[in-house]
Amino acid sequence: LYLGVDIGGTKILALVVSAQGKVLSRCKKKVKETDPESVLARAWQCSRVALREAGLGKKAITAMGLAVPSAVSDGIARFAPALGWRNTPVVELAQQHFTGPLFLGNDVNLGLAAEYVLGAARGCQTVLGFFLGTGVGGAVIHQGCLLHGEDGLAGELGHLIVVPDGRRCGCGNRGCLEAYASKTALLARLKEALFEQRLPSVLARSIKPETQMINSSQLFEAYQAKDPLTREVCDGGLRLMGPALASVINMLSPGRVVLGGGLVDAFGAPLIKRVRQWTRPYIFSGPERAQVIVQSALGDDSVPLGAALLAREAGKLLV
Amino acid sequence: LYLGVDIGGTKILALVVSAQGKVLSRCKKKVKETDPESVLARAWQCSRVALREAGLGKKAITAMGLAVPSAVSDGIARFAPALGWRNTPVVELAQQHFTGPLFLGNDVNLGLAAEYVLGAARGCQTVLGFFLGTGVGGAVIHQGCLLHGEDGLAGELGHLIVVPDGRRCGCGNRGCLEAYASKTALLARLKEALFEQRLPSVLARSIKPETQMINSSQLFEAYQAKDPLTREVCDGGLRLMGPALASVINMLSPGRVVLGGGLVDAFGAPLIKRVRQWTRPYIFSGPERAQVIVQSALGDDSVPLGAALLAREAGKLLV
Repeated sequence: LYLGVDIGGTKILALVVSAQGKVLSRCKKKVKETDPESVLARAWQCSRVALREAGLGKKAITAMGLAVPSAVSDGIARFAPALGWRNTPVVELAQQHFTGPLFLGNDVNLGLAAEYVLGAARGCQTVLGFFLGTGVGGAVIHQGCLLHGEDGLAGELGHLIVVPDGRRCGCGNRGCLEAYASKTALLARLKEALFEQRLPSVLARSIKPETQMINSSQLFEAYQAKDPLTREVCDGGLRLMGPALASVINMLSPGRVVLGGGLVDAFGAPLIKRVRQWTRPYIFSGPERAQVIVQSALGDDSVPLGAALLAREAGKLLV
Repeated sequence: LYLGVDIGGTKILALVVSAQGKVLSRCKKKVKETDPESVLARAWQCSRVALREAGLGKKAITAMGLAVPSAVSDGIARFAPALGWRNTPVVELAQQHFTGPLFLGNDVNLGLAAEYVLGAARGCQTVLGFFLGTGVGGAVIHQGCLLHGEDGLAGELGHLIVVPDGRRCGCGNRGCLEAYASKTALLARLKEALFEQRLPSVLARSIKPETQMINSSQLFEAYQAKDPLTREVCDGGLRLMGPALASVINMLSPGRVVLGGGLVDAFGAPLIKRVRQWTRPYIFSGPERAQVIVQSALGDDSVPLGAALLAREAGKLLV
């Protein structure tokens, strides 16, 4: 049995997973303090609850995988802006709690790897993943290998440029997909529009100037209820997925483009349908190729499941 | 010795090449009639002149490679809009002239392969090529293999979307890089501007409404002479290379991005410098990564040299 733990900027999700990739139990906890020691103590607490739920002790676990929102090498999280970590020796610190074999990976890479091995991208040669949440994460698998590129920074699909000289992105550049289609970007647009009082909105009650983040399901409820402002803002930002996805399809001709992350989980199949519509007019080899765009099959579990697979493969997952 | 022949929409270039990749002689001819028989007869005529120049007969040739502006499979050019060919059995037709081993490949793939084996991209893992001419051709090499994608249509870098809902492209879609940075696009913009008489231009003499194409060196001369209209139109179109190149750098983190084709050959190093400037502000991992953008080292020879390498490798070049 394996433990797979997804450590995010706001939540931790721990899974107990069988060697066949079956999820036996799960536990989710909020991140309170973001210093490495507190986060890893919390991750272990979360893991123990998942173990208890499965009726197991930690001796039942062969190895543990940890996923972090960071570039990773040698068990160290190089830079995780969501947690404020830089060169954090995650494996070393986690070893205080779990003494068995421990492996560290990047969350988006592990999420796409899980979709490739067990989920929506099985049997494909070339697979891309876009994960829409606080940011827009990306990963690329080609012929069974995760692409890292010549400086380890490949796969930054959130930083495809969709509008030259466009909106300022969190990365400091302009016009990135993340500056339009992330939850952060949608929240910023909603705040602007509420301030300008352009359209009425049910979200006027829940979004205040001091709101740091918005709940994906709240956003979806307002969208489903045809709240005019939510429709305008969400469609206005998310439609730029169209040119971005078409660009990568025209470039790599993948077998699957998997959409995942909190926003996609909340919006579900209707969003996939709309993204296909937004992509179709831009595909070089014909609009029917938009069918390669699919929803994550594993949802929230994809990243911790990928972490468990990393543990199962002793750190050598799709390399 | 090998023959490598580049068959384009307007010209044919034949090289006699040694097994080490050294060019022994070359011959260039214009394409007059574009039906397959005439073009292949002309390609053979061109090859014979190159052979004569090297003091050789056709018996000295081990194998011949042909490059065409078309998707290719089983010796057949599937669709070559520049020549009006569809499912043309090129190898079968060329066998009337040359009875030795004959191999057919896509021109842009072969051009980038030559740069990878002998030119500006030697020793790199991941390499992208943008070839700016009548259109904008593209190719991708990853870990020693040309990418074809799941439907054989990968590498269409001219159809990266740079402006959502932008200008109409020759492919029928909108906002493609080719609709801004190809010679065809620049000529269309020049014609529009001359018609509107927005700015004076030395090109007013050479560009008439019936002009089908403009010479890259004419364009460069006017650009060098600081002709205001030429500057405005060329910079306005070519600057969109910036977001496009940044997108592919952010996505694949390549070791080299090679720029080639008639337009790049004519504009030379100053264009490379400018493209780097246009790309820098959009690179996720930092502006210094723009240094991966380099000019083709083989220029006009890259495609026929790639065809000769294809012949040398008996049809299995970077597969």
